[in-house]
Amino acid sequence: MQLGMIGLGRMGANMAQRLMQSGHEVVGLDAQPTVREVFAQQGGRSVDSAAKLVQQLPTPRVVWLMLPAGVITQTMIDELLPLLEPGDTLVDGGNSFYQDSMRRSREYAQHQLNYLDCGTSGGIWGLTEGYCLMIGGEQAPVERLTPIFQALAPSPDRGWAHVGPAGAGHFSKMVHNGIEYGMMQALAEGFSILSKKTELDLDVHQIADLWRNGSVVRSWLLDLTASALKDNPGLKGIAPYVRDSGEGRWAVAEAIALDVSAPVITLALLERLRSREPDSYGDKLLAAMRNSFGGHAFIPDTSQPFKPLD
Amino acid sequence: MQLGMIGLGRMGANMAQRLMQSGHEVVGLDAQPTVREVFAQQGGRSVDSAAKLVQQLPTPRVVWLMLPAGVITQTMIDELLPLLEPGDTLVDGGNSFYQDSMRRSREYAQHQLNYLDCGTSGGIWGLTEGYCLMIGGEQAPVERLTPIFQALAPSPDRGWAHVGPAGAGHFSKMVHNGIEYGMMQALAEGFSILSKKTELDLDVHQIADLWRNGSVVRSWLLDLTASALKDNPGLKGIAPYVRDSGEGRWAVAEAIALDVSAPVITLALLERLRSREPDSYGDKLLAAMRNSFGGHAFIPDTSQPFKPLD
Amino acid sequence: MQLGMIGLGRMGANMAQRLMQSGHEVVGLDAQPTVREVFAQQGGRSVDSAAKLVQQLPTPRVVWLMLPAGVITQTMIDELLPLLEPGDTLVDGGNSFYQDSMRRSREYAQHQLNYLDCGTSGGIWGLTEGYCLMIGGEQAPVERLTPIFQALAPSPDRGWAHVGPAGAGHFSKMVHNGIEYGMMQALAEGFSILSKKTELDLDVHQIADLWRNGSVVRSWLLDLTASALKDNPGLKGIAPYVRDSGEGRWAVAEAIALDVSAPVITLALLERLRSREPDSYGDKLLAAMRNSFGGHAFIPDTSQPFKPLD
Amino acid sequence: MQLGMIGLGRMGANMAQRLMQSGHEVVGLDAQPTVREVFAQQGGRSVDSAAKLVQQLPTPRVVWLMLPAGVITQTMIDELLPLLEPGDTLVDGGNSFYQDSMRRSREYAQHQLNYLDCGTSGGIWGLTEGYCLMIGGEQAPVERLTPIFQALAPSPDRGWAHVGPAGAGHFSKMVHNGIEYGMMQALAEGFSILSKKTELDLDVHQIADLWRNGSVVRSWLLDLTASALKDNPGLKGIAPYVRDSGEGRWAVAEAIALDVSAPVITLALLERLRSREPDSYGDKLLAAMRNSFGGHAFIPDTSQPFKPLD
Repeated sequence: MQLGMIGLGRMGANMAQRLMQSGHEVVGLDAQPTVREVFAQQGGRSVDSAAKLVQQLPTPRVVWLMLPAGVITQTMIDELLPLLEPGDTLVDGGNSFYQDSMRRSREYAQHQLNYLDCGTSGGIWGLTEGYCLMIGGEQAPVERLTPIFQALAPSPDRGWAHVGPAGAGHFSKMVHNGIEYGMMQALAEGFSILSKKTELDLDVHQIADLWRNGSVVRSWLLDLTASALKDNPGLKGIAPYVRDSGEGRWAVAEAIALDVSAPVITLALLERLRSREPDSYGDKLLAAMRNSFGGHAFIPDTSQPFKPLD
Repeated sequence: MQLGMIGLGRMGANMAQRLMQSGHEVVGLDAQPTVREVFAQQGGRSVDSAAKLVQQLPTPRVVWLMLPAGVITQTMIDELLPLLEPGDTLVDGGNSFYQDSMRRSREYAQHQLNYLDCGTSGGIWGLTEGYCLMIGGEQAPVERLTPIFQALAPSPDRGWAHVGPAGAGHFSKMVHNGIEYGMMQALAEGFSILSKKTELDLDVHQIADLWRNGSVVRSWLLDLTASALKDNPGLKGIAPYVRDSGEGRWAVAEAIALDVSAPVITLALLERLRSREPDSYGDKLLAAMRNSFGGHAFIPDTSQPFKPLD
Repeated sequence: MQLGMIGLGRMGANMAQRLMQSGHEVVGLDAQPTVREVFAQQGGRSVDSAAKLVQQLPTPRVVWLMLPAGVITQTMIDELLPLLEPGDTLVDGGNSFYQDSMRRSREYAQHQLNYLDCGTSGGIWGLTEGYCLMIGGEQAPVERLTPIFQALAPSPDRGWAHVGPAGAGHFSKMVHNGIEYGMMQALAEGFSILSKKTELDLDVHQIADLWRNGSVVRSWLLDLTASALKDNPGLKGIAPYVRDSGEGRWAVAEAIALDVSAPVITLALLERLRSREPDSYGDKLLAAMRNSFGGHAFIPDTSQPFKPLD
Repeated sequence: MQLGMIGLGRMGANMAQRLMQSGHEVVGLDAQPTVREVFAQQGGRSVDSAAKLVQQLPTPRVVWLMLPAGVITQTMIDELLPLLEPGDTLVDGGNSFYQDSMRRSREYAQHQLNYLDCGTSGGIWGLTEGYCLMIGGEQAPVERLTPIFQALAPSPDRGWAHVGPAGAGHFSKMVHNGIEYGMMQALAEGFSILSKKTELDLDVHQIADLWRNGSVVRSWLLDLTASALKDNPGLKGIAPYVRDSGEGRWAVAEAIALDVSAPVITLALLERLRSREPDSYGDKLLAAMRNSFGGHAFIPDTSQPFKPLD
């Protein structure tokens, strides 16, 4: 099939490449000339505007978005709306909020345009291992795009699925990422405990690698952990600063909206916030309160490493 | 090799069988006649006392404990001490507290007896897939028992390791189980959110199965989740009552003792406690407090399903 | 002064009464005839429509809303907008979301109407003890309504304050309630621990009462706790079912939006959700997973009290 | 009455002074000469050994310990045992673990010595406001020491109580401190949210002071918060480093041992641990994992303030 891929960043370029490796034709669109050049070197054809992209695709068109969620995605969706024709299909493969996808799907439907929300997992490993695709939307476009999904997934009959109506794909991906946060945090805490037990002089990489075989916690995230610890078990040179994308926040908010208590997913998110707040106002206030009621000295705030006074 | 297996429950019997399948000879010991009969039907030889077990094994002996941690394990260790001879090796493959293992190892060493603590993961699937073995203790007995570890592990060179001195095996297993609690809870919360999103009518089994291929959360626990949801996506007939073994508690206590904040592992444990406290005193007190300050009606406690009054 | 009080529920009626006790005149509005009758018996004058209320008040008018947040409050605000005249002041004393208050304030300002958001704490005790008022909005209407605030507060110069621009009142109240959740949960957990330590046979009421004098945890919520435990230390007849109003949820969402890790406020909310989910899907899935990997029996779900099987 | 006070630190010296103000005679013991000098200037008589202290007290003696829990307290208890005579009473007013107090009480009873465990709350404010005393032990010595308790408490009939058998005093105090941790953390989080909402430009001290009157969260800890924020609302010069004494840890461990889920008390403890771990291994591992699966850059660890790269 022919497909237009909008956004040739890490994810989009890899997905385009995997599609081309399966014999599909991809026209890429990216605003940055250098990105387009790299894409050309990988054998891809690219354009520099949505209008050109649409012109180059046969109808009914298939356009796949791989853009940062939010304003950038919305802007492109708005730009594409008048360019596309009834029967065309737009797939949002990014990490959009599922309620945005439900709304966009309705808007597109009013113009006889198909809209699919496709949660995409796999990261930079997807190029070689395939992507896990959670697809929401109408049945007909999902059927028409099946060869695309089969090429992107790890195998033609595994790793992609039509999980429900519009929004279901991004909803599933949102929950997936919530689970991912929880699992990552569980692993991070466990290896933190191991690393602090200095009297046993444990080799964290050896243990990570050991658990990959036969243990209850064997998992892809453990594989990555073992890999990260292999050459750098002390994690030297890495700041304890953990970003979050929107999806963990949405998962936490959605759980609360559904009256589901999800403490582990929630705490995994909060720990990331905490990692980025080294100069915590709350902790200062606790130190000040302890000083007020117990006369406990608090520690002067210096740029030196923390050192208790008493 | 020849090995005495003490405790022919689910774990011990399966491990004995896996050893026998690799050509090792196993003499089993279990207090219950019916258990010994089942073991005999599986081709195993068994005895009914520690003294007989020791008599039937060639020196230097290898005895493997697969008993519930705590009093039962300690009693057997005490009973074996005068029966064993210098050079013999006792392996505790159960879920003992690592500090107990450190102490027992010292006591055995005073009698020239070898003591290994072997954290064993794999559950009932270990028989066919192999066990993950985390071994603590001296180097010499680990070397001598290598054929045993190789037979129990998923493959001779993967899934078993000598991770450190006495206690290191059970310490690693304790942390492993803490991570397991966190991962399980993350999955449970995620699927709970999916199941509550009724407007999208998601198929929880389809999604679990989908994620097994290419997604970031692919893992053995997800495989089990998919399996559990296959025939019973509504989880009918299962009480929301989650036990815990000692290891999660020890992991939480150890994290605190090491000044490591491990919120996800900790909350995963607390959630299990919470599942077993349906008639929570704390929640009643909250309801009573709300009534006191806001005049909010609380709900009469009946055996009927909860139903808000106002 | 003269003031129109819309909503004569528990809070509104008490506040009107406290105002009348200070010599202010209050015209009440409530949709329910029985509520108006009760109000009349307390010496209040009431009407049955917003139009009548507005007619009966001298300009510049002061109208105070004490309605459930959300649709009911919004509907009344919309109804009042064309009835009020430039210079009139509307106070929302309910628990509205602060962003709604910011928007409503802007809309009212376009019509030269003053809008104040007034977070109100104190519950049913406010009638006798006074209310704590957190006021957001412009300076001029706050000054004009000062006699009202002074009458409602515990004392004329304490317990009310103009805390900032539009939204600041409800924002502060939202955070206040988040703290309230956390404090209540801390107390609930503590008394739960005391009540479970049966070997020491502690008298929970005695301890609550004891701590009210000189201890670090002395607080109004502890006073209420002591009161709740006085005649019913076992909390018999109270279901472990804890509601939440919107404010805890908003506080949690706002903390995350501000990148503030607020684990205690968050967990206090989740515990309330949890109290209302006795048949937890997540816990069932955990039980099913344990069964899958360990062969651990799970407990059949019956309407009988939980009883472990093995 | 006459009483020997062992440990003339912040707490012991203040308590001795409060007792002397009520007409009791106190002989103080402290190892440090400078401490004894300060005590002498406050009008107290002091000695430099336990033997001298015991000699100076009339029988039946009353000796009060106000020492750091653990080794120091145990050493003094062991030293006193042979010096005291049947009928004497030792009170441990420090923060000992309640199980230690139960054991010590049994040991003292074997020598016909009375042992009381007295949880003491109030901090440096106790001197003027009185201490809250939770007393465990036998009835007779509690009755004999009643004048002491009455003098230390905020008033003769309020703020002290015999709460149960040996251990009950320190158990109650342990739970009290758990609640204290939770309340403090709730306040810290709330004020952190307020301080981060820069668009509303809130005055955190004004709000703290406002809430002290009529609000649901009014409490002594809020009084202290308001005081701490008065001159330093930005908490400048205070490091975000929060210590914990043993009692929070014991409360968390005890809750788990009793199968009580106490997430708020637990998280309040973990947050303190977290405040002292700015260079978190777990967070580094999370950053490394994100880099591994998503190609997300992690931030080089420098001594510069954190600054995201992409």
